[in-house]
Parts: sequence; structure tokens; C-alpha cells
Amino acid sequence: MNNDVKLDTHISLAHGNGGRFMRELIDEIFSKYLSNDDLDVQADAASLKIEKTDIMFTTDGFTVQPLEFPGGNIGSLAVHGTTNDLAVSGAIPKYLSLNAFIEEGMEVKQLERIVKSLARSANEVGVKIVAGDTKVLPRGQGGGLYLATTGIGIRDNDLNLSLANIKNKDVMLLSGSVGDHGISVMLAREQFGLSGKVVSDSASVLAYTQALSGLEGVHFMRDPTRGGLATVCHEISRFTKMGIRLQQDKIPVKDPVQSVCEMLGYDPLFLACEGRVVAVVNEVCAEEALSRWKALPDGQDAIIFGELDENITRVVLMTEFGGERILEELEDDPLPRIC
Amino acid sequence: MNNDVKLDTHISLAHGNGGRFMRELIDEIFSKYLSNDDLDVQADAASLKIEKTDIMFTTDGFTVQPLEFPGGNIGSLAVHGTTNDLAVSGAIPKYLSLNAFIEEGMEVKQLERIVKSLARSANEVGVKIVAGDTKVLPRGQGGGLYLATTGIGIRDNDLNLSLANIKNKDVMLLSGSVGDHGISVMLAREQFGLSGKVVSDSASVLAYTQALSGLEGVHFMRDPTRGGLATVCHEISRFTKMGIRLQQDKIPVKDPVQSVCEMLGYDPLFLACEGRVVAVVNEVCAEEALSRWKALPDGQDAIIFGELDENITRVVLMTEFGGERILEELEDDPLPRIC
Repeated sequence: MNNDVKLDTHISLAHGNGGRFMRELIDEIFSKYLSNDDLDVQADAASLKIEKTDIMFTTDGFTVQPLEFPGGNIGSLAVHGTTNDLAVSGAIPKYLSLNAFIEEGMEVKQLERIVKSLARSANEVGVKIVAGDTKVLPRGQGGGLYLATTGIGIRDNDLNLSLANIKNKDVMLLSGSVGDHGISVMLAREQFGLSGKVVSDSASVLAYTQALSGLEGVHFMRDPTRGGLATVCHEISRFTKMGIRLQQDKIPVKDPVQSVCEMLGYDPLFLACEGRVVAVVNEVCAEEALSRWKALPDGQDAIIFGELDENITRVVLMTEFGGERILEELEDDPLPRIC
Repeated sequence: MNNDVKLDTHISLAHGNGGRFMRELIDEIFSKYLSNDDLDVQADAASLKIEKTDIMFTTDGFTVQPLEFPGGNIGSLAVHGTTNDLAVSGAIPKYLSLNAFIEEGMEVKQLERIVKSLARSANEVGVKIVAGDTKVLPRGQGGGLYLATTGIGIRDNDLNLSLANIKNKDVMLLSGSVGDHGISVMLAREQFGLSGKVVSDSASVLAYTQALSGLEGVHFMRDPTRGGLATVCHEISRFTKMGIRLQQDKIPVKDPVQSVCEMLGYDPLFLACEGRVVAVVNEVCAEEALSRWKALPDGQDAIIFGELDENITRVVLMTEFGGERILEELEDDPLPRIC
């Protein structure tokens, strides 16, 4: 190495070559915070004894810019994103693997903050990081840090969720406000020069999905991430070949989020949430489902906001003043690199 | 989009935004080649019914440059890398997830070739791709394509492999020549201006690991990827606190690989292989293990090349002329971005 001082404070290509520097990086950053009895950094694969043979498996990549924002960072996001996909599929998340693509020149202290936060989030959700890999990208060929997490969950037999379960007149619930994550990340970008009061909603939705476990008539859940709530509605409408009516005035949008959206021309319905969940339930259990969500510590904003309608084919927004407008499918990205 | 023609031939940021273009990319490239009865691109997680509750789980990231090289590409490599980690851990690979970080501007035809090759490799190894995610990186913030694959395997109870099993006087086997992958990728880099006769060894090692299943005295296996055969020896020596004697003249290096190494000053022992495996076995079963490997279709170069020695603490290379030299640990990367 040309510069031993830099090696201690910033990532170099030598941290990615399979030799001593890589081992030290893994020991001093990754193993230090992520260690658990199922993580063996000496082994090529983790040996796991799982509870049941019915498992759920999912993966997600993370490229958010900036890497840190109010309410979270790429590390906590990488835990919530993947474990939320397991939760909304009707599983209890158990194990995660972690891939880190680290750009040469990244500050080691920042990497450490992110890994520490990732470890805390994993702990809160109750998942163990049991496998990992690091690669170092040459300076200029990465965005600081890209992560991918892949999760294994155990299927909850009391939650049978599928797009195919959805029926006409089913009711749609939302667990909280939309737009917080998208706007908080956007405001954290220096070029906007706006100081943000908006905090990302990045969080686990497991308490919400588990709150509906065992309740008959719960048909489907999804977390409205990339593409936002509007995209979840379009996915449901496309699959079921039914339309959806949304009550625009019911959908909670926090005041500072609404202000920024109006100022910059964003529609909060298309912005990524990272800690919200949509449930599609039979109309007879809708109130019970809502009351279970409202009883959760952060559940006070949960609402019923829409319903399936086989007599229409589009996603229709019922506006505050009694009007209707068709909610078009997302084409151009309002806010790229949000997750 | 500013340019509809470009969207058809090259990846744009709109392919990553969760909307229609992303769905089309997934349908027309990823689902087209990777489809199987357990992959549901509409679901947040794959629902799997596995055979046993004893599983192995591993992940690997891939940043090879160039993306295509003689004998493989980043897609086939992403299958072999992760399934080989499962195989050398004593598992039968069953399921993979795939993360693709695609740089804006990547040619769609090249992406399609890579996904097609990935699908063929998965099929050959007998694994299904059951979960995936794509992200698009802004132009200049990616190396064309980065992949991560995460695998689930079912434990083979007749292969009990662990560093902790290794004993003094254990014998080390190698399944084939070293340096082929590293040199083939290096020669594929335009800046070297060398046309390559060297073909990567990128392949599944499952036939090799399974050939030793049920044979008593097989203690440990590892595939010598990043850092090469030398690094595997250092890992074993460090963990066991025993030294290793290697017979340098026994280790197969193909002539064109040797020539390039001599010309450019590389040591083939430090170069990544992507289709070789090292086994550490009790001396009494070494000949039987070797004959099983030699009986495999590509196994003719398999050899016994070293042994554990508790009386020394370093990795020692016994040279052709009866000399000895200490094989130092890798510090500087001889060939970065090789996997």
C-alpha cells in the first residue's frame, strides 16, 4: 500500500482482495457488530437448523443516496426492506445474508456507523445475519456503498396471503402516512439545500402483519416501496383485473411532506414508503383489522382507504371534492435512488 | 423518456423505478430465461417447501471485469460461485436468489446474453432461481453490471466438513489446474492487448464434492477463489495452528497460464479459480479420494499436493529442486475484479 494512514480511515482496493486487509475489515467492522452463534466467518456457508420445512425466501438490493438520512441509513433500510417482504408474505423473518459492494475511498467510520445500525435493526426485527460477502469497487464505479440482503422466513400458517385471494368489494387498509421516506431522503440530498423536518418511516412492519395473523378474511399484504402506494394499487388491479377506488382525502400525508410535494411537484402516492403496509381484507373483517392496527404503538394513523370494484378496470382516485380521476401508472421516476 | 429507441437497446434509469419499464425488463429478460414453478415475480417472497430442516445458506457478490470472458461471464460465475460454496460445505444446492445492479447505458443484448448463460448454468447445477431484485445505477456509478447470488442447499449428512475436523498429517487434494480463471479474465481485458488461449475454469464443483460423499476421513473442502490456492492454505493453517507443506511441482498449471504468469510476474498460486476444489482428507483415504476424482469426466488432473504438519507453523512450498520457501500471505491484489 502506498499510504498506510489512508488504509485505516478509508476503504482501499486491498480490502477486497481476499487477503489480510479484507480479513481485518471483516473482523473489525462486520463480525464485530453482526456476530451471533450462527455466523461463522470462517465457513463457506452457514449451517442452519430451521423450525419447519415451509419457508419463504426473498432478496432486495439497496442503492439509496445519500447513504444516511433522517430516520435511517442504507444499513437499517437493507434490514427493513427484506424482512418486510417476508412479513407481508406471511412469514416470520429468521435469517439474512448480506452483500456489501463498497467503493474505494469510503470512510471506514461511515461504514462502521451503517453496519452498527444494520445490526441494531436486525436485532430489533429478530433476524440473524448468518452469511455475508464484501466486494470493493474501484473509485468512481460505485455510489459509496450498495447492499443486498436476502432473507429466509418461516411461514406463518395463520396468514395465507396471495394476490389470488383478493375478491370484489375487498377493502384496503394502510398502516400510516405515505411519502415520509421518499421526501426525507430527497431532503437529505445536499443539492436541494432544504433542511428537513421529515423523518423516514423506515421500520419493520412485522408487528402489523402479525397483528392480523389468525384473522379470517385477510387476503393479501404488500409494503408500498418503489413506486409507492399507487404502484401497489396498479399491481393489484392488473393481477385481479378489477378496478380500485381510492379515497384521496383518507390517505394520510404529513404536513411537511405535503408542502415539499406541492413545492416540487411530487405526488406522495408515488413515493416510496419503507415502513408501511397495505392489507387487502374481506369487508366483514375490515373494522377488526383496522382496530388491531390502531392498537399498535405507532398505529394511530392506520386507515381504510379504498376498495376493489369489479365494475371498473382502472385505479380511480375519488377526490376531496367528489370528483374522480384515473391514477396513471408510474413511468418516469419521481425520485430515483430512494431505496 | 427523451429517447424511445435507446430504451429498447440500452438500460435507462426508468428500468429501475418500480413502474412499467422495470416490469417489462423483468418480464422480457429475467423471467423469460429464469422462469420455473417456484419463481413468482408477482410475489414479495418465494414460498418454498424444502426437503429437510438442515440447510446451508451462503451468499456471494460478483464484480468481474470484463463481464464476459473465454469460458464464462458474470452470470455463469454468479451461479458457480455461490453453488460451489454450498457444495464445498457439504450441501446439495437447491435454490438461488439473484440481485442485479445494472448500470444505466448497459446494452440490453449483453444483459440478455448474461442472464441466458446464468439460466443455463443454474439448470446444469440443478438449482432454481426463486427470488430476484434489479436496481439501475446512474451512468458512471457502476461497472456495467454487479450481481449477487444467495443460495440455499440441503445438507448432505454423508459429508461432515469443517475446519475443526482437520488433523495433523491430513493430506490435501486439488481437483485440477490453477490460474485458468484469473488469467483468462486478465487476458480478456483490452488494455493487455493479448489474445487469450486460456479458458476460465468456471464450473460447478458439485460432482467433486459429491464424489467424496460417504467416504470416511474426508474432513474439509474449499474452493480456491479470491486469493487462490495459497489463501486457502493460509486459512487452514491459521485456523488449525498447523503448518502445511506443498509440493510445488505437483500443482498443475497449464502452459499458457504459466507463460503469462512468468511474463507478467504473477504467481498462479494466488490467482482465483472458479471451478476447482481443495479437499483435506485423512491420509488413509487419500488414494481412494483421488481415484474417485480422477474418474470424473474432467478429473484427470486431480492430484495430492500437500499435507498438514503440526511441527511447523507456516505454509511452506517444497520447490522442484528440493528447496523450501515460505509462502507469504496475500497483501496486494495481483488481479483485482476477477470474480
